[in-house]
Amino acid sequence: MTKESIIQPITNAIRSVIGNEETLIALHEPSFQGNEWAYVKECLDTGWVSSVGKYVDQFEEMLAEITGVKKAVAVVNGTASLHMCLKLAGVREQDEVLIPALTFIATANAVSYTGAIPHFVDIEEKTLGLDPVNLADYLSDLATVHNGECFNKHTGRRIKAVVPMHTFGHPVDLDRLQEVCEKYSLALIEDAAESLGSYYKGRHTGNWGIASAISFNGNKITTTGGGGAILTNDEELGKLAKHLTTTAKLPHKWEFRHDQIAYNYRMPNLNAALGCAQLEQLPLFLEKKRRLAEAYRNAFSVVSGVSFVSEPEDTVSNYWLNTILLQDEYASARDAILEETNVNGIMTRPAWTLMHKLPMFTECPRMDLSTAESIERRLINIPSSPHLTHQDMTS
Amino acid sequence: MTKESIIQPITNAIRSVIGNEETLIALHEPSFQGNEWAYVKECLDTGWVSSVGKYVDQFEEMLAEITGVKKAVAVVNGTASLHMCLKLAGVREQDEVLIPALTFIATANAVSYTGAIPHFVDIEEKTLGLDPVNLADYLSDLATVHNGECFNKHTGRRIKAVVPMHTFGHPVDLDRLQEVCEKYSLALIEDAAESLGSYYKGRHTGNWGIASAISFNGNKITTTGGGGAILTNDEELGKLAKHLTTTAKLPHKWEFRHDQIAYNYRMPNLNAALGCAQLEQLPLFLEKKRRLAEAYRNAFSVVSGVSFVSEPEDTVSNYWLNTILLQDEYASARDAILEETNVNGIMTRPAWTLMHKLPMFTECPRMDLSTAESIERRLINIPSSPHLTHQDMTS
Repeated sequence: MTKESIIQPITNAIRSVIGNEETLIALHEPSFQGNEWAYVKECLDTGWVSSVGKYVDQFEEMLAEITGVKKAVAVVNGTASLHMCLKLAGVREQDEVLIPALTFIATANAVSYTGAIPHFVDIEEKTLGLDPVNLADYLSDLATVHNGECFNKHTGRRIKAVVPMHTFGHPVDLDRLQEVCEKYSLALIEDAAESLGSYYKGRHTGNWGIASAISFNGNKITTTGGGGAILTNDEELGKLAKHLTTTAKLPHKWEFRHDQIAYNYRMPNLNAALGCAQLEQLPLFLEKKRRLAEAYRNAFSVVSGVSFVSEPEDTVSNYWLNTILLQDEYASARDAILEETNVNGIMTRPAWTLMHKLPMFTECPRMDLSTAESIERRLINIPSSPHLTHQDMTS
Repeated sequence: MTKESIIQPITNAIRSVIGNEETLIALHEPSFQGNEWAYVKECLDTGWVSSVGKYVDQFEEMLAEITGVKKAVAVVNGTASLHMCLKLAGVREQDEVLIPALTFIATANAVSYTGAIPHFVDIEEKTLGLDPVNLADYLSDLATVHNGECFNKHTGRRIKAVVPMHTFGHPVDLDRLQEVCEKYSLALIEDAAESLGSYYKGRHTGNWGIASAISFNGNKITTTGGGGAILTNDEELGKLAKHLTTTAKLPHKWEFRHDQIAYNYRMPNLNAALGCAQLEQLPLFLEKKRRLAEAYRNAFSVVSGVSFVSEPEDTVSNYWLNTILLQDEYASARDAILEETNVNGIMTRPAWTLMHKLPMFTECPRMDLSTAESIERRLINIPSSPHLTHQDMTS
């Protein structure tokens, strides 16, 4: 087989699942079939579109119930949420924060906003997320713990936190990662931007960290237009999250007094209204996406040279973005596959450029990133909208 | 006359303008009588609610036309806009930035986000905004210019920029302020958060600075739920503003590559749709608000001990928040007036607590702030929603 011989079978496998529609098939489109209109119209009819209104509270309560956390705080987007999670965990200027090399830019940017330095770690193929075993090995050489704080022996800087990202909805190995965090006194912050509806050992992602970030961008499983949320099981941190994201204004009937430098990160009521209607449909979206993933798995099981990424052991994934991995000998066909599919109306995309390859992060500390680099060469995301699911797909 | 004798005449003057409705009269409520629902519904029907969609472009074009600038960039809120304006003007860590002591917290917070230090300056009573004559005097002692950069002789730090805020919609004296900026090599950034529809010598506020910030919060003259915009006449800065607010992602059909640490500040299409419908009605809102202000001016012209704040000479104000100032001898009745009006269903509020009195800014450099302190003791904002205007109000 030549490298090119894999292109058509992959395109055919995708087409066998999503059909032969002439229109462009997006990577992930939202679906507004529920109460979106009703709730959004109510905001306009009542004039409550902005910083006050019942939908923000309702959205936060629904989200806390779905994820099982004590407090959810709605914010403008996932990036803002990550920024606040790092602040809540006590990340300060000149700290180092361990993050996977394979992630969306928001993870690294949010670390930078706090004045801390991203420190890139490798991933494992079975989860596409941070590899806790590899990280433990790395820290055994690199790190030292003094008085309950972890330090990088080479740079002398404090390593304050680790931020795993649940890639495309697939949970990382949280049990093993928690062991590493305990051993090295690291704060665990989950970048659960992509994993609403994903569980590790029966407990929702975002429910494991000191604080966790969710995204409700337009391409996510549920959307608020733009939006995000902070999750935490620490009630004091929950209150602080609300305070920090609403300009740290002290409650008063008319006085404007603020007690610290803080942020205007609150989600408008209009967007929360959309979010409430979307969360109502989350179980339906999850079911449809699971059936779509199953159909892809079946279709790709008979294509050689490529594998479909399934949820890791002990987890339930939301299958946010369906993903295929080329075998190494076909990696050089990746761009031709991207070209062929996109030209023919099937949106596909590669992995994000690894963080350590971006000009602003090339000088940041990092470990050997062989697995991330291998995955980057071989990964392709394929169309994943819930509405692509047909009735006859097996569940 | 006792201090208390002023309370009832003020309440009566407000009631004579807004009527005797039993329901709570808000300080400023939005009005959605135009195409809001049509445009928002189109977003839901087409699925374009988030980072892509025609309304963001349309909103930016409408805003550029209204304000006469070359480029407007829509963002999540006014605070984000201010943050970006400071970055665009080259404000760096450990710079000082001159801002009025009387402003909303966003101005000072945005300076802090860049790592710079707010330096508080006094205001003048006729504009409620930064006093350029006073500032010039102050800088003649404090500042020195070397190689086109201004330095604070006491702290040794660079003074990079000045950020006037057009308080409640009333423009500051921009001609004189520009003279000060030229003499001391200061970048002029306008905090025009409150002044959409306000003009200084026939040119729109926000059109004078290197970059300027607008807010579309729910309480503003037009709203996007939550939102803001950056205005600039420098096309290169306009491009940079778009790049910096959209994660600095380089254009590519599928690759995710970013060339600097940047922000996720884009306005969602859903919010921009609301904004387009609101901007269509801006002339109507301005007309109604002008008539409301005129009615207040007439009503307060016969109340002794208090004056209504009118637009400064050479300006047209949007009269965003109508404002009265107590004479000094009645200042101690301010809280009783706030109490009486709020208890009786008329929302009123005092000035924001002056910035230098907030715990996080008490150590920041500042000049004598006598006028700001005097205004703070005497200022009350009164209900200003456009829908409070009646047909029989003189125009």
